[in-house]
Amino acid sequence: MNLTVTDVRLTPILVADPPLLNTQGVHQPYTPRLIIEVVTADGTTGVGETYGDTKYLELARPLAERLTGRRVDDLNGLSALADEVAVDDSRVSGQVDVGGLRGVQTADKLRLSVVSGFEVACLDALGKCLGLPVHALLGGKVRDSVEYSAYLFYKWAGHPEGVPAEQDDWGAALDPAGIVEQARRLTERHGFTSFKLKGGVFPPDQEIAAVRALAAAFPGHPLRLDPNGAWSVATSLKVAEEIGDLLEYLEDPALGTPAMAEVAAATDVPLATNMCVTTFAEIREAFTRGAVQVVLSDHHYWGGLRSTQQLAAVCRTFGVGVSMHSNTHLGISLAAMTHVAATVPGLHHACDSHYPWQSEDVLTERLTFTGGRITVPDGPGLGVELDRDRLRPLHRRWLDDDGRLRERDDAAAMRVAEPGWRTPAVPRW
Amino acid sequence: MNLTVTDVRLTPILVADPPLLNTQGVHQPYTPRLIIEVVTADGTTGVGETYGDTKYLELARPLAERLTGRRVDDLNGLSALADEVAVDDSRVSGQVDVGGLRGVQTADKLRLSVVSGFEVACLDALGKCLGLPVHALLGGKVRDSVEYSAYLFYKWAGHPEGVPAEQDDWGAALDPAGIVEQARRLTERHGFTSFKLKGGVFPPDQEIAAVRALAAAFPGHPLRLDPNGAWSVATSLKVAEEIGDLLEYLEDPALGTPAMAEVAAATDVPLATNMCVTTFAEIREAFTRGAVQVVLSDHHYWGGLRSTQQLAAVCRTFGVGVSMHSNTHLGISLAAMTHVAATVPGLHHACDSHYPWQSEDVLTERLTFTGGRITVPDGPGLGVELDRDRLRPLHRRWLDDDGRLRERDDAAAMRVAEPGWRTPAVPRW
Repeated sequence: MNLTVTDVRLTPILVADPPLLNTQGVHQPYTPRLIIEVVTADGTTGVGETYGDTKYLELARPLAERLTGRRVDDLNGLSALADEVAVDDSRVSGQVDVGGLRGVQTADKLRLSVVSGFEVACLDALGKCLGLPVHALLGGKVRDSVEYSAYLFYKWAGHPEGVPAEQDDWGAALDPAGIVEQARRLTERHGFTSFKLKGGVFPPDQEIAAVRALAAAFPGHPLRLDPNGAWSVATSLKVAEEIGDLLEYLEDPALGTPAMAEVAAATDVPLATNMCVTTFAEIREAFTRGAVQVVLSDHHYWGGLRSTQQLAAVCRTFGVGVSMHSNTHLGISLAAMTHVAATVPGLHHACDSHYPWQSEDVLTERLTFTGGRITVPDGPGLGVELDRDRLRPLHRRWLDDDGRLRERDDAAAMRVAEPGWRTPAVPRW
Repeated sequence: MNLTVTDVRLTPILVADPPLLNTQGVHQPYTPRLIIEVVTADGTTGVGETYGDTKYLELARPLAERLTGRRVDDLNGLSALADEVAVDDSRVSGQVDVGGLRGVQTADKLRLSVVSGFEVACLDALGKCLGLPVHALLGGKVRDSVEYSAYLFYKWAGHPEGVPAEQDDWGAALDPAGIVEQARRLTERHGFTSFKLKGGVFPPDQEIAAVRALAAAFPGHPLRLDPNGAWSVATSLKVAEEIGDLLEYLEDPALGTPAMAEVAAATDVPLATNMCVTTFAEIREAFTRGAVQVVLSDHHYWGGLRSTQQLAAVCRTFGVGVSMHSNTHLGISLAAMTHVAATVPGLHHACDSHYPWQSEDVLTERLTFTGGRITVPDGPGLGVELDRDRLRPLHRRWLDDDGRLRERDDAAAMRVAEPGWRTPAVPRW
């Protein structure tokens, strides 16, 4: 067994994405992801996946070079390795990026988002070399399956006329009835029993009506609403008062820890976040102020699966819940999420996943939800297999792109339909 | 490779201990430890070590039974397994145990102290099965050697007359000159460059004088003083004022988080603890109140090596330093400490170890300090080998004991020399 990394392959791709709406705009018809393959001296290949925008690729390339020649089990060394890679200052604002949905943008976080893809690829390779599933490398699963929620979106029937895009069969969902219908189909197909609605798209009253319609259609099922920080404190509290009793939690009603703390102090509805606590540096203030009751990890920007376990330990220590948020992702990341979620004790909420919205994947076999759950793979590594025939055309699409789709920009995508669209000022309502 | 546990062997032992003094009394001539061996289906044996008092043995036996038939890599399952083991209420006070030096006594902590020995044994076995060092199973070392401090004790030349005991060649150390001489010998033998004095034995002025003598003898070297919570807040502040500029940190000057917080609020001298923060449940209050600046982990009572990594993550998140404390231990635990310490980023202080005081060990080859450091073993597992010929007589000693030495009780040991001795009330000064 030779655990030395002999090659790292980076394959940026563009994957089809339906016209899902959020407070920033709309998903592009194709969204960038990066597929990372780590090859060991004895020919084992591990796969990872992370964000694929250019700023991530710029870091992934020098990190890939540095990883070659090192050991695939030197996971703690990955961050130190990434620290050697310079981040172009123009790539990070140091502020919560209102134009994005990934929280604060710092050089460290950018690095961690890249590290996470490498860490998952290394864990996959290591697991394959040792004949152990990734969850065993993380200390072992404490559950045999991981629950996911149905991720509901306001959406158009299709991307704007004339824009190259894949078709989807979900139809439009722009009102309470459309959301309920979407929830019903997601449940029929995948067995989900809890529901998260991406809000911040319409004035709060319309989204309140959608939650009420969901509660009526699925009585007793956990419901969540996530306007991505689009509301003022007053609006947040109004929504909490009106539908708080229907909600498992309210996710990022207002932007940033001070506003969230204000909301939290005035309502009993638990607040979840994947925007104001997205790095370890943000935890102290948020926890000390009681701003959030549930942190939704994204293993991509927290720095990987082991960092996610550490986040869970910090949350447990401070009596804060933990679960997982999702951005557009493919099966590699879903497998990674499932492995780490399987090892986290006290995961009290179903995780989010965009996966049901992704018609394309790079695996030989898609992961499937049964009863809203993914069975934790027990095969070596992540338990998934990269399909080069599926990877190739998605990479070709990236190569052929003139640069417009290589940076995910939901506001730019929205401007195709509404030329005057600008990222709304916060709070929007 | 068959990772199923087929046998677990528990060997309680009594190991020779010199007459080291602390605020509770004096070390017994022999102290109980428990050696744990976990055997896998393919004949691999992993070793662990933990506290050996009866209350730990009572939990270790049913846990050993439950572990048999499970997988050696199911580390996250260990705690759940231990939770099934009932703890006799009379064994735990739920309070900080003033009669002991291990902080709060709760059922969970008792379980974790046992779990830690099993976890280390499982990691050792797993590492041997996979051909990987334990540090690799913890994500990989970030340093090649781990620094330890010289652990200085006030001590008698020998245990009381007529008490069966091993002789040691350290002589007495009961004043500043004796402590400096001890420090010099420890440094000559092991190369230590930082010094910790176990205080709380003599009135503070005498210990202040010892620290001053050390500072004069070893100018510029990091010094620490640890009275095990024996002082009042006022005394703690007086000591901090007098010798704070000589100290790397002051360890547990006063007992409990409220008193520590009061001291911390009034001095710039960093406070370290292994008494008021010894469980995850105690972290929130202590960190929120700024009561401690360095947490000294004991992987035994924090629940193992992975829990120690989680503790380090929590500390890092809250800007609190982390290092390691020590109780009387043998080479297995020193190896375990070294492996986990090697994986923790930002370990800014040398770890404590009693190991130089232990003339007996159960290893074929003792670990050695070079320049005050232990080289991180890179062989499979912990990189140490159990010596049955050395284990046997120590177990025989335990079997032959009439029960008086099986529970470590420093106050009882002191009463042999001073019949009227009682555990001093706190604060003692």
